Amino acid sequence: MTAKNAFYAQSGGVTAVINASACGVIEAARRHKDKIANVYAGRNGIIGALTEDLIDTSQESDAAIAALRYTPSGAFGSCRYKLKSLEANRREYERLIEVFKAHDIGYFFYNGGGDSADTCYKVSQLSEAMNYPIQAVHVPKTVDNDLPITDNCPGFGSVAKYIATSALEASYDVRSMAKTSTKLFVLEVMGRHAGWIAAAGGLIEDQGMPVVILFPEIEFDQERFIARIKDSVERHGFCTVVVSEGAKYPDGRFLAEQGTRDAFGHAQLGGAAPVVANLVKEALGYKFHWAVADYLQRAARHLASKTDVEQAYAVGQAAVELALEGHNAIMPTIRRIGNDPYRWEVGEAPLAEVANVEKFMPRDFISADGFGITPACKEYLVPLIQGEDYPPFHKGLPAYVTLKNAPVAKRLEAPFEL
Amino acid sequence: MTAKNAFYAQSGGVTAVINASACGVIEAARRHKDKIANVYAGRNGIIGALTEDLIDTSQESDAAIAALRYTPSGAFGSCRYKLKSLEANRREYERLIEVFKAHDIGYFFYNGGGDSADTCYKVSQLSEAMNYPIQAVHVPKTVDNDLPITDNCPGFGSVAKYIATSALEASYDVRSMAKTSTKLFVLEVMGRHAGWIAAAGGLIEDQGMPVVILFPEIEFDQERFIARIKDSVERHGFCTVVVSEGAKYPDGRFLAEQGTRDAFGHAQLGGAAPVVANLVKEALGYKFHWAVADYLQRAARHLASKTDVEQAYAVGQAAVELALEGHNAIMPTIRRIGNDPYRWEVGEAPLAEVANVEKFMPRDFISADGFGITPACKEYLVPLIQGEDYPPFHKGLPAYVTLKNAPVAKRLEAPFEL
Repeated sequence: MTAKNAFYAQSGGVTAVINASACGVIEAARRHKDKIANVYAGRNGIIGALTEDLIDTSQESDAAIAALRYTPSGAFGSCRYKLKSLEANRREYERLIEVFKAHDIGYFFYNGGGDSADTCYKVSQLSEAMNYPIQAVHVPKTVDNDLPITDNCPGFGSVAKYIATSALEASYDVRSMAKTSTKLFVLEVMGRHAGWIAAAGGLIEDQGMPVVILFPEIEFDQERFIARIKDSVERHGFCTVVVSEGAKYPDGRFLAEQGTRDAFGHAQLGGAAPVVANLVKEALGYKFHWAVADYLQRAARHLASKTDVEQAYAVGQAAVELALEGHNAIMPTIRRIGNDPYRWEVGEAPLAEVANVEKFMPRDFISADGFGITPACKEYLVPLIQGEDYPPFHKGLPAYVTLKNAPVAKRLEAPFEL
Repeated sequence: MTAKNAFYAQSGGVTAVINASACGVIEAARRHKDKIANVYAGRNGIIGALTEDLIDTSQESDAAIAALRYTPSGAFGSCRYKLKSLEANRREYERLIEVFKAHDIGYFFYNGGGDSADTCYKVSQLSEAMNYPIQAVHVPKTVDNDLPITDNCPGFGSVAKYIATSALEASYDVRSMAKTSTKLFVLEVMGRHAGWIAAAGGLIEDQGMPVVILFPEIEFDQERFIARIKDSVERHGFCTVVVSEGAKYPDGRFLAEQGTRDAFGHAQLGGAAPVVANLVKEALGYKFHWAVADYLQRAARHLASKTDVEQAYAVGQAAVELALEGHNAIMPTIRRIGNDPYRWEVGEAPLAEVANVEKFMPRDFISADGFGITPACKEYLVPLIQGEDYPPFHKGLPAYVTLKNAPVAKRLEAPFEL
């Protein structure tokens, strides 16, 4: 078997550890030069493949690739660009195959969430139909933790650790201030449809902090919410609220709705925290503070979960190994073996069962009143935030890497209009 | 000389390292039991003294006190309660002296910013006038870095490190996303009147990140701001904005004004980031993300500056030593001896020169165009964020301490109405 090239691309919102997966893919590929000649990365995700804008990762030193393990964000650029259905835009898929053919690419590693699992699956199907077989392996990544089959998604553990730590630290702060000043602290977190990230805020309860969580899965009941806050402040002197950006009124409107939409047609959110804080202020008069963590939470590599980093690396590495074993249209997964101590291994799932399936919080992870998490949820979450894995620092700041990202010479004459 | 008791209280907004100062005070006092019998802490700051609600710190183990060094927030509670002028409310000052007398308190350590330096100074003056001499020493603390004479304020270095790190991480993130999605990231930071915290965002420029800073010291010029963002996005593909909560329109209105005021009569702010982001969206159409760090930035002990922790501890310890040497109406300061390598020592300043003086950013620390920081500013800032000083973690979260805070039995009959 002659060596083929591999294509690797990052898709959708980036995370603190998606580059650890890239590191796993590239380091594994470099150990198998007899089978994988070079890894070409898509500049800005799948757009790089469509426009034949490929990055030659062989130009990067081993040290630079190793530094990806502790560098947040997408080192090659990501994109929000969803390929249409095969029927609606077959031309895009055919173009991908043409580019792969032109650059002798035999492996397609796509690192993303549900949308990209779908793309990966279609590429694998079409490549067979077009008689240029490509082994397509999806590398799971999403802070939203909403992919099916895998026990958890790389990227989530670090956000969960960041949100739980931040909520804990802010709760210490508001507890100090509550006597004469702030009694309510509201932290807005990501999670458009699934409340996994918000759930992480519930972990501070075991540290004695009163916390109320607003999940996207639970309709916002203003009256019960206000009563809950009042009770907490009367008993503890203060209250912390963790609100998901996806929290909704009973009529389906987001608390945070801004009226704009992103490239995938999803409503662009932001601003549930001030809405919630002002509701409480009006009803109860409490002084409040609010924070919106936004990108800080998913970029916070300085506080990554060691477990998450190890899993992100492992699924990248496993993707290469699975491809070399001849697997196709597959995704490496995290399989939980035990909780105490936590043990896990890499499993695998067929993409046909992954694509376009969203995993929500099970109802038994949310407390009966809808404002907290259950012991079962804590048992699920705690292992995922275990361990610290600090990046090196230089002059007081994390010493993250920026790659050279040298282009691969184009081989196709025709440009491609997106 | 018979041993007297000491009173210690925390005032105003708490920080990631104000408890490190408490640790310095209490550990130093414990080394001098012949002179300081016990340290009584005010529950919720000066209110604890007024209402004779004192905490017996001798009930806390050495290990618990040592843990204060890595625990954010105010362990004894802080307060926003500004004593009126001596003329307007002499009764409050007299009550303080009565409580101090009743509990044989000979040392007053007040840990706070400009307002509390003023209170500390007045207590020292009145105690002399009332013939019950108290040695009053102010322990500097403020994330705003706006106290005079001292080269910098404990609390600031850790916020600066947090903001620079967060802005760096978010810039990596937006750089990855910019091709098809977010081109503008706006981070709102604290600093009501002085732009020191916002300035820390300027440190990411040396890591290749385009950043525009909106200082409270510089009138917001919308047209020039929009032009600056456009230029940055055209040249780099994206831009990061760090906006101070104190940024103002030319007519003096805060960008963030919410119309409410706190107990000190200061306008309560929050929300400059979405205002700025929407201005850019309207003018240039760029997709944006924004974050408001709020309490997260000043509570983030997990990312404290080692230099800051050491200085916070040192000024607490020095306060006790200065008092034992017979000093009064004084504040320990940080004196910079050299930059390369950074060297510092503890100095001292008379409270008469500290109280009610605010230190703003020098104009030569802000770039000519008003949107960035100068090399002189970087030279000032970089040493303050040096070093990491991670707290211990347990089950994935920082293992911060919560003290017992046992009350001291009251000795006065009359209660006191605040």
